[in-house]
Amino acid sequence: MSRIDTFVFYSLERLLTHIESPKELKKLPLEKLPKLAQELREFIIDIVSTKEGHLGASLGVVELTIALHYVFDTPKDKLIWDVGHQAYGHKILTGRKEIFETNRQLGGISGFPKRSESEYDDFGTGHSSTSISAILGMAMASRLDGDLKKQHIAVVGDASIASGMAFEGLNHLGVTNVNALIILNDNAIGIDPSVGALKKYLTNVKAGTAKDENIFECLNLNYSGPIDGHDLNALVSELERLKHVDGPKLLHIITTKGKGLKQAEEDQVVYHAPGKFDKATGERIKKSGKDQPPKYQDVFGHTIVELALENTKIVGITPAMPSGSSLKFMMDQIPDRAFDVGIAEQHAVTLSAGMASQGLVPFCNIYSTFLQRAYDQVIHDVALQKLPVIFCLDRAGLVGQDGPTHHGVFDMAFLRCIPNLIVFAPMNEMELRNIMYTAQLGLANPLAIRYPRGRGANINWKNKFDPIEIGTGRCLKKGSKMAILTIGHMGNGIAGLIDRLDRPEEVGHYDMRFVKPLDQDLLKTIFKDYGHIITIEDGTKIGGFGSAVLEFANKERYTNPIKIFGIPDQFVEQGTITETHQLAGIDFDSIHSYIQSTLDQCE
Amino acid sequence: MSRIDTFVFYSLERLLTHIESPKELKKLPLEKLPKLAQELREFIIDIVSTKEGHLGASLGVVELTIALHYVFDTPKDKLIWDVGHQAYGHKILTGRKEIFETNRQLGGISGFPKRSESEYDDFGTGHSSTSISAILGMAMASRLDGDLKKQHIAVVGDASIASGMAFEGLNHLGVTNVNALIILNDNAIGIDPSVGALKKYLTNVKAGTAKDENIFECLNLNYSGPIDGHDLNALVSELERLKHVDGPKLLHIITTKGKGLKQAEEDQVVYHAPGKFDKATGERIKKSGKDQPPKYQDVFGHTIVELALENTKIVGITPAMPSGSSLKFMMDQIPDRAFDVGIAEQHAVTLSAGMASQGLVPFCNIYSTFLQRAYDQVIHDVALQKLPVIFCLDRAGLVGQDGPTHHGVFDMAFLRCIPNLIVFAPMNEMELRNIMYTAQLGLANPLAIRYPRGRGANINWKNKFDPIEIGTGRCLKKGSKMAILTIGHMGNGIAGLIDRLDRPEEVGHYDMRFVKPLDQDLLKTIFKDYGHIITIEDGTKIGGFGSAVLEFANKERYTNPIKIFGIPDQFVEQGTITETHQLAGIDFDSIHSYIQSTLDQCE
Repeated sequence: MSRIDTFVFYSLERLLTHIESPKELKKLPLEKLPKLAQELREFIIDIVSTKEGHLGASLGVVELTIALHYVFDTPKDKLIWDVGHQAYGHKILTGRKEIFETNRQLGGISGFPKRSESEYDDFGTGHSSTSISAILGMAMASRLDGDLKKQHIAVVGDASIASGMAFEGLNHLGVTNVNALIILNDNAIGIDPSVGALKKYLTNVKAGTAKDENIFECLNLNYSGPIDGHDLNALVSELERLKHVDGPKLLHIITTKGKGLKQAEEDQVVYHAPGKFDKATGERIKKSGKDQPPKYQDVFGHTIVELALENTKIVGITPAMPSGSSLKFMMDQIPDRAFDVGIAEQHAVTLSAGMASQGLVPFCNIYSTFLQRAYDQVIHDVALQKLPVIFCLDRAGLVGQDGPTHHGVFDMAFLRCIPNLIVFAPMNEMELRNIMYTAQLGLANPLAIRYPRGRGANINWKNKFDPIEIGTGRCLKKGSKMAILTIGHMGNGIAGLIDRLDRPEEVGHYDMRFVKPLDQDLLKTIFKDYGHIITIEDGTKIGGFGSAVLEFANKERYTNPIKIFGIPDQFVEQGTITETHQLAGIDFDSIHSYIQSTLDQCE
Repeated sequence: MSRIDTFVFYSLERLLTHIESPKELKKLPLEKLPKLAQELREFIIDIVSTKEGHLGASLGVVELTIALHYVFDTPKDKLIWDVGHQAYGHKILTGRKEIFETNRQLGGISGFPKRSESEYDDFGTGHSSTSISAILGMAMASRLDGDLKKQHIAVVGDASIASGMAFEGLNHLGVTNVNALIILNDNAIGIDPSVGALKKYLTNVKAGTAKDENIFECLNLNYSGPIDGHDLNALVSELERLKHVDGPKLLHIITTKGKGLKQAEEDQVVYHAPGKFDKATGERIKKSGKDQPPKYQDVFGHTIVELALENTKIVGITPAMPSGSSLKFMMDQIPDRAFDVGIAEQHAVTLSAGMASQGLVPFCNIYSTFLQRAYDQVIHDVALQKLPVIFCLDRAGLVGQDGPTHHGVFDMAFLRCIPNLIVFAPMNEMELRNIMYTAQLGLANPLAIRYPRGRGANINWKNKFDPIEIGTGRCLKKGSKMAILTIGHMGNGIAGLIDRLDRPEEVGHYDMRFVKPLDQDLLKTIFKDYGHIITIEDGTKIGGFGSAVLEFANKERYTNPIKIFGIPDQFVEQGTITETHQLAGIDFDSIHSYIQSTLDQCE
């Protein structure tokens, strides 16, 4: 029990055992709710400590979750959890207690709210700042339907509400008359600590030093708070009051991320998703990284520091992912040239464009899936003006347990159609380092470098820098019948795959590296030398790398078979990386058996 | 002279004649500036009245333009015009007076600021709300360079500053110490009147009824204003003062869009870009639309009204384009179900998703080029959840004189890779009406309908509705040797093209309609029946419709030639639609000569 902040009372009877849905919850007297909160925390800690997942965010909203389902008539009333990291308590209280241990696993429940999973998950989340727009859409639908009683609640964190999309939602909400309640869950942190002027302002509000008009009142919202988000009496009473206030309103609550687990409160960044930990002591069970290749993100992080110490024009930009991208290494060592701009991908990209226009060399690090938020800025502000911004797209490809909201599988397709943009995928750590080195030497074009979540392929990865010629691939092995063309990290499995073939000498392997521009000379040679081509990528088949090879083959009138391995035309569910590759049919066993049977048929 | 507000004095000597750059401007005494303003207005009106272009925005900032170049040391000091519609005066005063009459024409100067055109155009604009991020990037670069004197100014309208991206920029700016000045040009209108809570707030500020803390001060900016943006003395004096105030600051000025031309002030929406007009009277010279096919936007506008009168679940959403999309027809007739949400594409899409989740049938009308701003929302909030939002993408394809910032040529490539999404392009008005009709009957999937700027193909277009089977194309003409596969409006030129061939009977024509799902049955027949295929689209060759046909042909092992006509891998410059099609090599003459010579070779 030492890990839990002590609550006023505790008894042997477990309340949570009897709660299958909010119906049972509503029957509890108010004074029992703190005990339920304690049990809910324990339950979350129990499961997450062994099954892994997001921890801190859900611990921080245990009281809010209980209060919301206690006061409101869910699922009739609509409830959206922005981002959704914090929805574990919500899932447990709404019928998913028994299967909660399958969280984030293949075939299990999602780590995020998901419409197909429960009638209590009114809107799927994963990316931030969508909840205000979505809840407003629902509230407007209710009003058109003549339902003036239904309540519509969005819970959004202070990091998410500072994103542009959230502002757009608030700006519209403020001129409507719908029953919508935005709960600003202010814990001063997203995954990393919140930044920006709004965060500073909220700090003033909490300290009582803000002047009398409130920023949310400026936006015509009925503001209340700040109140203590861990005080169930206060929460229930304020939510009851707001239930009877018509129109759009915003309740500002203060919570502590990781509340109830000492280490999680003290190290909020690490305990956002701590991996396995000892539930009795809270200590993390660290996986040894020894004798393992480094994470790609760390190769990026160390390399940008190494380069930036030499090249003073280099700057680093991340929208709210200093830890996840490892740009933090540079923020710690060269703080005046590394910037966390908050959840603001659009701004991050155009800020980088502005910097590049003045001769700086910006490395703008954005997860592949989040670059989707700044697509227009890549086209309109960067590529059209040919400003040499260097995009480092982490978490490209299938990301595993975060599932379909987070897979970075569209990037090659959506970037390849943009003129002037170079698109590169390193096969390993050295290729990543070398392309970063090449980029900062000065390119005439913007460049996107995509690399996956997880580890590279080499223990000894800190090579001396060697420039890469733009638009060139590499022949790793020659063959007589079939050429395997890979892009990025997936190339690492090919040597082993070829070894397991009956006649390895028949198959060649080419690490193409550049999705764009393609190495046309190398491809022409391949077209000449091989009667069969296979392309392999961890991105969408439609419009991706394989499609690029097809387009060029068509132009060259290469008419032999080209088989494309890539993500099929569907959203891939969650699972381990290996499982998701199997789901998508791009695991090496599938590829191996295709190749062997094709070669056998050629006999 | 009657068209111009009378200024205090007027003499025969024209000041503008002697101004080739801000250098000459700076030599004028302050009291001469109002006369210059008058001349600059006349000059703009003279040219725009005959050459067409954007009018109202530039007339509104004549004084501001003069004051900025008078006070600041451009081009050393950096100056960005958000959106850029208002930069005509800027162009005229910075060396482009003589060539201003080539504005928006092929080979002429751009209608927007453009880096490659002038050292005074510090950042290219076109899409809104980018200026704050870009100027902050420049200001941070100056600071890193140790230059604490350089000034950095962004001029942004009240409609643009309400967009999410602008908020992201302000939120970052407020915690920096850079020398950046944001000038909020508040004229209460974008292209259409501004909307939203921030607009309401600004109205209060102007009326003096806002409380004492200012929303911009909440964001830690040094706020001054509001001042009269047509008062040159006030502008010059305030800008001089702000030049010596360190750190980030925001100046709020009030202007009148269309200032100085009576009709433009009174009908600000129409005179945003009025076409040709009589410069003496201000009256527009209306092109007769009689005996011409309707604009696609009007087909959309009339049809949604027609459908929505029957189907009460239909709602219409536009991000700040009620006039441009003709959703205005529905806003006028069914105001409770048609919404202008401001320049907020991200919000518009997710709001639509929220509405669709509750059973409404949202038609979300966004220009193709602006959908790039909401790409993530289409994937993450709509397609992943299979919410049946109906996207109507106006201005798809090459848009003509607005040029590369506005061409809607990427949509087929970036939408085609998204699972669950249907992508359709109507060949004509009836197809547009029928797909809209089909969509509102209830689809299990989201749908994107892309159609071009400009007019359709039929005088009698108001057909009785007929549902379209999803994923089916149409055979318009059979042939013996070659099949032409078109997508969308370009199909209209094909019958004439075939007629002009030596042996028209050799060529078939198929209107494929669906970029996704492809009509695989029809394609299989085509593969069987033809030895040569041509695809034609007004979108990028890379990853687009032709690429989709290639992917399927490859899967089916069709090995005959497939020739793809589409936008090559470059940004296409401005010109008339015909000229831009020629630039891209997708004009019917080019296509005709390719076909004729190919057929001749087959002899």
